[in-house]
Amino acid sequence: MAATDPVQLTARLVRCASVTPKNDGALEIIHEMLSDAGFDCAWADRGGIRNLFARWGSRGNGRSFGFNGHTDVVPIGNPDHWTMPPFGAEIRDGIMYGRGTTDMKSGVAAFVSAAIDFVKETPPDGSVVLTITGDEEGDSVDGTAAILDFMAENGERMDVCLVGEPTCPDRMGDMIKIGRRGSMTAWFEVIGTQGHSAYPHRANNPLPAMMRLMDRLASHTLDAGTDHFDPSTLAVVTVDTGNPATNVIPRNCSATVNIRFNDSHTGASLTEWLEEEASRVRDAYGVDIKMTIKVSGESFITPPGELSALVSDAVAAETGVKPELSTTGGTSDARFIKAHCPVVEFGLVGQSMHQVDEHVAVEQIHQLKAIYARILKDYFA
Amino acid sequence: MAATDPVQLTARLVRCASVTPKNDGALEIIHEMLSDAGFDCAWADRGGIRNLFARWGSRGNGRSFGFNGHTDVVPIGNPDHWTMPPFGAEIRDGIMYGRGTTDMKSGVAAFVSAAIDFVKETPPDGSVVLTITGDEEGDSVDGTAAILDFMAENGERMDVCLVGEPTCPDRMGDMIKIGRRGSMTAWFEVIGTQGHSAYPHRANNPLPAMMRLMDRLASHTLDAGTDHFDPSTLAVVTVDTGNPATNVIPRNCSATVNIRFNDSHTGASLTEWLEEEASRVRDAYGVDIKMTIKVSGESFITPPGELSALVSDAVAAETGVKPELSTTGGTSDARFIKAHCPVVEFGLVGQSMHQVDEHVAVEQIHQLKAIYARILKDYFA
Repeated sequence: MAATDPVQLTARLVRCASVTPKNDGALEIIHEMLSDAGFDCAWADRGGIRNLFARWGSRGNGRSFGFNGHTDVVPIGNPDHWTMPPFGAEIRDGIMYGRGTTDMKSGVAAFVSAAIDFVKETPPDGSVVLTITGDEEGDSVDGTAAILDFMAENGERMDVCLVGEPTCPDRMGDMIKIGRRGSMTAWFEVIGTQGHSAYPHRANNPLPAMMRLMDRLASHTLDAGTDHFDPSTLAVVTVDTGNPATNVIPRNCSATVNIRFNDSHTGASLTEWLEEEASRVRDAYGVDIKMTIKVSGESFITPPGELSALVSDAVAAETGVKPELSTTGGTSDARFIKAHCPVVEFGLVGQSMHQVDEHVAVEQIHQLKAIYARILKDYFA
Repeated sequence: MAATDPVQLTARLVRCASVTPKNDGALEIIHEMLSDAGFDCAWADRGGIRNLFARWGSRGNGRSFGFNGHTDVVPIGNPDHWTMPPFGAEIRDGIMYGRGTTDMKSGVAAFVSAAIDFVKETPPDGSVVLTITGDEEGDSVDGTAAILDFMAENGERMDVCLVGEPTCPDRMGDMIKIGRRGSMTAWFEVIGTQGHSAYPHRANNPLPAMMRLMDRLASHTLDAGTDHFDPSTLAVVTVDTGNPATNVIPRNCSATVNIRFNDSHTGASLTEWLEEEASRVRDAYGVDIKMTIKVSGESFITPPGELSALVSDAVAAETGVKPELSTTGGTSDARFIKAHCPVVEFGLVGQSMHQVDEHVAVEQIHQLKAIYARILKDYFA
């Protein structure tokens, strides 16, 4: 029996111009392959987004191992900046080029091909579930969240889940992600009273109040880190006034603050803190301060345990590298899956993701498939 | 002998569209009137700017009283916003309307007509010098400064000088200006290292450094005021970053600070202080900070004494109001004259200066001429 080639599958997927939220036939390729291999496949589309749910094995029988990934990609930017065709999947000197070669059509191809070969060669006493969405790089509203809703409605489950996002910063195998920090953004506007620079007592300059508020926020230590998380961070990303006249005191000033927070905070607790700080400055300076908050995601974690050990051992066996269990980086669809079952993320080296001439070493795709295959074997052993 | 009508002269001057640096015949009107009245008149033009120097009486003989003023005006802005012709000098209900009716064609007309009548009626044992420029509202480089250079080259002098700018904030006679605060502007740029909001330790955000620097500057008390000056003031007038992305830490941030300072500082001493503050923040935050300074004018004062008493007494006699001796407000050509001789400023109520429908009460022009006439009489008494 011929093994499924994850490189060939990656190339087929890269040739679909599935720039989020477009699918361009990518998920149909997988649907067909999985159906042929005996998976029960269902579309879990929502809001115009194509989503694939696939299960090998019966619903209620034994343990269920899940994979999650996405086939949509970020835009290519200016095509003139690419030296290789962005949807060509051309291979040169063992490197495949194209949008999604790293993030994460290779990851999807690796777990799809690993799963197909695994159930053929050693049919497990349980089920293998694949959840693949076309909306991870966009709003992420009708993507993995929609598949999980579909699963809940249809009595489907995963006992554990591995997200195939690229996770390794430097070399294959060096990092597994077991959680992510939360992320929130606060927009501030300080409103004073306009006036002439020569008569500041007749005006109420919003800038000193804004400087004090931002200085307090930026110099505050949110925490010292927790068991599995780095210290939370706060970045003042922009402060703007737009006043071209040196003899005019402006009326208002705006600022934006981005916070990445660990499990010692929640979006609500940080909002409360920001409101207290704004209120203190508001009272001290006699200005009006407006604040708008958006919590993009709360922090989440699957503490080190059975699942991370399973993945870690498989990575070490295939690569010789002992992966770090990390919670760094931006958010991912694992934040949705966390509410369903324990989840960790492991994939290849993500260095060129979202860049021009995104590329992956063909050898890494084979290696990733082997790791996923070993994880399946060990899980059902 | 008929008295010279300052209202008629104001109207003639207002009808010249002498928007700085244009003259449009304004100074020629004055040149002709003064020549007819026996003044020695000379053009002190420079850099395309028309400037008039006029002296009654011989150069070396007795005391010399000087007047200074300008006939250029600021632009009218959108003519549709005016309800009266901006260069019409139309009078309605005792109010004359037009650009320059307040700032300061009426002031020039008042001292020109007072001087003409004074030398005719009571020829003094001394000289009366009039210095009138067409460049006060613009760069002020080739205006009063050029007349003073002309005077130095030609052995001309004023023993004291009265600038006829509008000085009264509320009612005729309520303020004489005996000096002005200095003014300077500092432009700052803080340069760090760009990065991703999720990984602030890999970037060096310039904003916390800028917030700290601006907070330190804005909350610093420069002084508590001096004998004749209000406390110096510092206004942070703009802080700008222009970063639209909440997940990006910006590379640089700019800010502008405007300082109005009294005689306990100089442009140089404040520059030194700003450099120290910038250096402290530079070292603490590991950022680069660039600073550009422009000192528009140093502070200057003619301490209360013979000249201010002369003007004050004349104002009180004509108006019944005892004027305040003040150093408030923006800069004026008195800053150039200060190096030549004692100088104070007195003129009418400046409320509508630089505004649309600029206007003056005709009665105030007569009153101002009477005050100037009394000053001349008392000076030479």
